[in-house]
Amino acid sequence: MLDKTHNKNAKSWVAIPENSDFTLQNLPFGIFSTKDNPNRRAGVAIGHQIVDLEKITSHFQSIHEDLNTVFSSSTLNDFIALGKEVHTQVRHQLFDLLSEGNTSISEAVLVQQKDATLHLPIQIGDYTDFYSSKEHATNVGTMFRGKDNALMPNWTQMPIGYHGRSSSIVVSGTPIHRPKGQKMPPNAEQPVYGPSSRMDIELEMGFVIGKSTSLGDVVEAEKAEDYIFGMLLFNDWSARDIQKWEYVPLGPFLGKNFGSTVSPWIVTMDALEPFRIEGPSQDPTPLSYLQTTGARAFDIQLEVSMQPKGIAPKVIAQSNFKYLYWSMSQQLAHQTVNGCNINVGDMYASGTISGPTKDSFGSLLELTWNGTEPLTMSDGSERTFIEDYDTLILKGWCEKDGLRIGFGEAIGQILPSKE
Amino acid sequence: MLDKTHNKNAKSWVAIPENSDFTLQNLPFGIFSTKDNPNRRAGVAIGHQIVDLEKITSHFQSIHEDLNTVFSSSTLNDFIALGKEVHTQVRHQLFDLLSEGNTSISEAVLVQQKDATLHLPIQIGDYTDFYSSKEHATNVGTMFRGKDNALMPNWTQMPIGYHGRSSSIVVSGTPIHRPKGQKMPPNAEQPVYGPSSRMDIELEMGFVIGKSTSLGDVVEAEKAEDYIFGMLLFNDWSARDIQKWEYVPLGPFLGKNFGSTVSPWIVTMDALEPFRIEGPSQDPTPLSYLQTTGARAFDIQLEVSMQPKGIAPKVIAQSNFKYLYWSMSQQLAHQTVNGCNINVGDMYASGTISGPTKDSFGSLLELTWNGTEPLTMSDGSERTFIEDYDTLILKGWCEKDGLRIGFGEAIGQILPSKE
Repeated sequence: MLDKTHNKNAKSWVAIPENSDFTLQNLPFGIFSTKDNPNRRAGVAIGHQIVDLEKITSHFQSIHEDLNTVFSSSTLNDFIALGKEVHTQVRHQLFDLLSEGNTSISEAVLVQQKDATLHLPIQIGDYTDFYSSKEHATNVGTMFRGKDNALMPNWTQMPIGYHGRSSSIVVSGTPIHRPKGQKMPPNAEQPVYGPSSRMDIELEMGFVIGKSTSLGDVVEAEKAEDYIFGMLLFNDWSARDIQKWEYVPLGPFLGKNFGSTVSPWIVTMDALEPFRIEGPSQDPTPLSYLQTTGARAFDIQLEVSMQPKGIAPKVIAQSNFKYLYWSMSQQLAHQTVNGCNINVGDMYASGTISGPTKDSFGSLLELTWNGTEPLTMSDGSERTFIEDYDTLILKGWCEKDGLRIGFGEAIGQILPSKE
Repeated sequence: MLDKTHNKNAKSWVAIPENSDFTLQNLPFGIFSTKDNPNRRAGVAIGHQIVDLEKITSHFQSIHEDLNTVFSSSTLNDFIALGKEVHTQVRHQLFDLLSEGNTSISEAVLVQQKDATLHLPIQIGDYTDFYSSKEHATNVGTMFRGKDNALMPNWTQMPIGYHGRSSSIVVSGTPIHRPKGQKMPPNAEQPVYGPSSRMDIELEMGFVIGKSTSLGDVVEAEKAEDYIFGMLLFNDWSARDIQKWEYVPLGPFLGKNFGSTVSPWIVTMDALEPFRIEGPSQDPTPLSYLQTTGARAFDIQLEVSMQPKGIAPKVIAQSNFKYLYWSMSQQLAHQTVNGCNINVGDMYASGTISGPTKDSFGSLLELTWNGTEPLTMSDGSERTFIEDYDTLILKGWCEKDGLRIGFGEAIGQILPSKE
């Protein structure tokens, strides 16, 4: 724990509001544009501001010559491809430049977040969604297949996952139209076509690949974190009626691929280091290719709020990333054990992160127990699944001994189906 | 049928061997490089030759100004993005330039295919694999879930599909290492880790998206072909033991994503037009969003050969693209009915194309009926699944009234697992 950026007492010359997600110790990367300069470019969040990295490239010259140009790219992929050592050095340099007393850069390189448009920070190659919360898999399995078949025998032996759609991953704030599709109504004999009436969220976190491999290469579980650039919030919107009718035998498809929402800022693994924690104990012991030493989970508090149009948001769930049974290291080792290659910018999502208690479930399907137990909104109205114009808000942050590292928000509003 | 390129009597000044896949009427697009010029660039196959499009851009000036540069790109994506009208005009212009008697271009713009390296022709965004052969789905369903649950109730209502891995799609000729992974041996209580012992192929065809949509847009079945640039051969390598243990409930994952092999030349929909044919009749009638008018299948003959090291290849299956129950138009309409966006360069595969008879099955799983009925190779030896150093060869071609349009080959050799 010798990383200077973990010093909770360090202060910045940038004003940082109390309980800000974007402290001097965080320094997450994103892509933004402004009215003055509509070119997409890289920035780092601090307090209510964004450091415009394009304006301070001279301060990174000695780290890597490509830092002259990569921050002017419309995605972070080229920066990420420079490797973990470069990311760490850039973050340390930023920490120094933004520390109290340092006058090397001035407020002229800052942009107010409220004046900026935030964009999807990476060009995503492939996207994989895991299913790594035992509580979630058990809950959903119970509802979809009954209690006796809830958790399949393979679930405790490997991180079950599937490939998702990268084209429809959007940045926080992008509205999503209610999907139409095929559904089999209860007790019906023929499927019907129409808008989903069981629109749901899945509270997940994503990680972004920071290092590519070649076809045939295997990423060892022990070294898997070397391949991870950072993390963000991930809402895997789900249409439960479409999903239920289509998913046997090849898995989720149109019930998921109409949209997923990510938070705009990628928090680096370096920033998360102080929040490393042991994950759940695993029984049976995983096969050797899935074994790791040391703590591989992270203590990240998660919160979901629901906001019907015109009323205040209501917190409907509180969970924690540490509940996940399978770690990111195990997920990545599993994904590559067969030689499947990974690329910088690939996205991985955790699967819904449900905790042990009912108020910690990460989907409406679980929170309302398949629509049978409605939630009460801030104005006293009730909700089972998402109605048109409802907004869903995911938040996440780490907090310990006065040190706070936050992820911001992943927000999305559901609009009516397009005609 | 007024397209001049469909004139079977038209001849080229380029020597075209009898039974060549690459006739004057075909003109498929690909990406190649040569020893002299290692830059990847676009070409068109004709006979044993490749037309180096970069050398003849002046002849396309009047069609679209970007044709000056797109052929110098390392993928076809920029060319494809110019739209169907441009593709058609370029193909017509090539037809003229290569027709007997035309002296506008000379042999100096040709490269021998044997002197060229062929590359993956597109940068693939997302990849979807369908499961659209009723015969295949019934065969596999019978083996995996028993006769009574072979075909799920949803199968005859929609084109079942799942998202696959685009990073591991490789061009013909690229060897694939035998994947390792988790398997549950018959009657065992614990899974084991090791190389797959049930390596298989899937005889499929792929299509490439030629026109993008925005999130929320729906592609109507009737207009779906407007969004397809062309087709190629697709081998969806499969590790049956890994697949069987992992696939419930989220579908195929590591049993598939270690590699897929495509043929290097993309045959345009224009070239395939003369081979349009009615597909199988559909009962029950699909929901309206899946209905189309006119013939939507294509009569494409398909052949699989297996070649253990050191002996001659043996044809092990002959099938036809026309056997597919769900058409490409229906697949694309289904994939987008929920507003999922598509991008130029996205890849779609048909699913294994099995015919009605045993010698027309498109996988070893079916051809050997789950490994119980071995195939005989050209030297009399037997095979159930693929052994190390075996080479599998997919071929495809259309033939009618003396007109032939071929796809070339998708070849791959299985190497031992990497240590």
